[in-house]
Amino acid sequence: MKDQFVNYIKNLQDSICSTIETIDGEATFQEDLWDRPEGGGGRTRVIENGNVFEKGGVNISTVYGELPEALRKQFTVDQADFFACGLSLVIHPKNPFIPTVHANWRYFEMYDTKGNIVTQWFGGGQDLTPYYLFEEDAVHFHSICKEACDKHNDTYYKKYKETCDNYFWNAHRNEARGVGGLFFDYLKEENGCTMQNHYNFVTEVGNSFLSSYIPIVERRLNIPYEQHHKDWQEVRRGRYVEFNLVHDRGTLFGLKTNGRIESILMSLPPTVQWKYNHHPETGSEEEKLINVLRQPKNWVN
Amino acid sequence: MKDQFVNYIKNLQDSICSTIETIDGEATFQEDLWDRPEGGGGRTRVIENGNVFEKGGVNISTVYGELPEALRKQFTVDQADFFACGLSLVIHPKNPFIPTVHANWRYFEMYDTKGNIVTQWFGGGQDLTPYYLFEEDAVHFHSICKEACDKHNDTYYKKYKETCDNYFWNAHRNEARGVGGLFFDYLKEENGCTMQNHYNFVTEVGNSFLSSYIPIVERRLNIPYEQHHKDWQEVRRGRYVEFNLVHDRGTLFGLKTNGRIESILMSLPPTVQWKYNHHPETGSEEEKLINVLRQPKNWVN
Repeated sequence: MKDQFVNYIKNLQDSICSTIETIDGEATFQEDLWDRPEGGGGRTRVIENGNVFEKGGVNISTVYGELPEALRKQFTVDQADFFACGLSLVIHPKNPFIPTVHANWRYFEMYDTKGNIVTQWFGGGQDLTPYYLFEEDAVHFHSICKEACDKHNDTYYKKYKETCDNYFWNAHRNEARGVGGLFFDYLKEENGCTMQNHYNFVTEVGNSFLSSYIPIVERRLNIPYEQHHKDWQEVRRGRYVEFNLVHDRGTLFGLKTNGRIESILMSLPPTVQWKYNHHPETGSEEEKLINVLRQPKNWVN
Repeated sequence: MKDQFVNYIKNLQDSICSTIETIDGEATFQEDLWDRPEGGGGRTRVIENGNVFEKGGVNISTVYGELPEALRKQFTVDQADFFACGLSLVIHPKNPFIPTVHANWRYFEMYDTKGNIVTQWFGGGQDLTPYYLFEEDAVHFHSICKEACDKHNDTYYKKYKETCDNYFWNAHRNEARGVGGLFFDYLKEENGCTMQNHYNFVTEVGNSFLSSYIPIVERRLNIPYEQHHKDWQEVRRGRYVEFNLVHDRGTLFGLKTNGRIESILMSLPPTVQWKYNHHPETGSEEEKLINVLRQPKNWVN
């Protein structure tokens, strides 16, 4: 399973990067291969200052060895070996009418002292963060998410959509990070589901990523914008930073377990503003976004 | 003691704001009075888009009532009433050759069921975050800190300077936030020191703040700068954000106990950049700064 998934995320990284580069038409991904001293490493790919994409990272990593202390506590084991791999991406477009997108698909194994797998699971998801709300974009993104889910289990979409809304909640701001998507974790062999079933589901979701996001990019990339749109995008990017540094378990886990900082923090936007007590004008497009973020809604039935 | 200190921070807020406005010559502080539903409130003052100061907040607050859950855990008490007040300031100048400064002085009381004080303490400090290193500025700032300390106890400066270096350490970047200053906490009645002694010390430090920082501002405010200096300042401001959102106990405590978000997050810089894997050129002024941040040094003996 692990070889199968590592192979999958390698190919997926290639196809996502290649599509992003084609649409950008100007910038290309810079690739950094890195080693983890305790075992494993990664292939980080970052695009910056493009025609369409201001900053983005599409990273894969495969890490293994002794379970780090933070995870030993979490799983209440004294000592164990583990294996984890995944693909993480965050794309920050330049045009404020194109949403930011994040996705992550990952696989984890933990072993007993004889090297047998004692537990294994898949996790991941994808979520969309617009700066201006186009309802049809949110509907499109969720429709593709639902289509991928429905092929496997007709309870998945509702469940993982709600988990996503709960997870990407900027509690200290009392608002969602964006319009959500899917979030799932600890997909283990249970309730008649094999790991291969989960693999099929997770890769279905991963394979649907480009068709969930790219049509939105194409629809919005030529909308003209002014400085005040850009300012609003940068203020909202501030909330993205707040979520990632205060609440995101993956980021905090990486920072506290000596992960490769530059690969973890590639998620942070290129330019950001914090204005004191900034609120959009009543009835504005900016306020329309905020109203939707205060109360996550259902985009598809 | 509490009335004495509340009165002190009110006057100090006035004198700091008035000096900042005079130097800026253009922008003035916007004042927001706010109430805390559970008891108390604050007077937040923020300056933005000034001639010298791009963004800054000088806030006081006085909060009391039932001890919030997070503090009950920390102090291992089931239920108690408390009182806390303090002044917090962060000033982000426009010119990248002027350092950012932060200061905080606070007082805390906790009561038994009969309303008697069971514990009380002072805490606080001030620290300097330059974007370009002028050694004489760091020396000046630390000299004033030391002078204030030495009037009270000749062990204070060394101890509180080290505590500051340890506290303002951006562990995930393996570098200090800036060139330090003072940090002290839990100054209680012990070892022959009365609370009045501590009050005298803390207010001595507070009173010295303007003379520690303002001469540095005046020395640097007319240095011409170019876009690349500003870019560097904004990249470094990103580290300031990382510290405040990932490590700063005060910020995290505020975010997790339903504090007034806009008063807490006034500390975040106005404009910030994150570039992937950005490193200053060998031998540059930017690298000179980084080298000092990697290994905190003694600025005065």
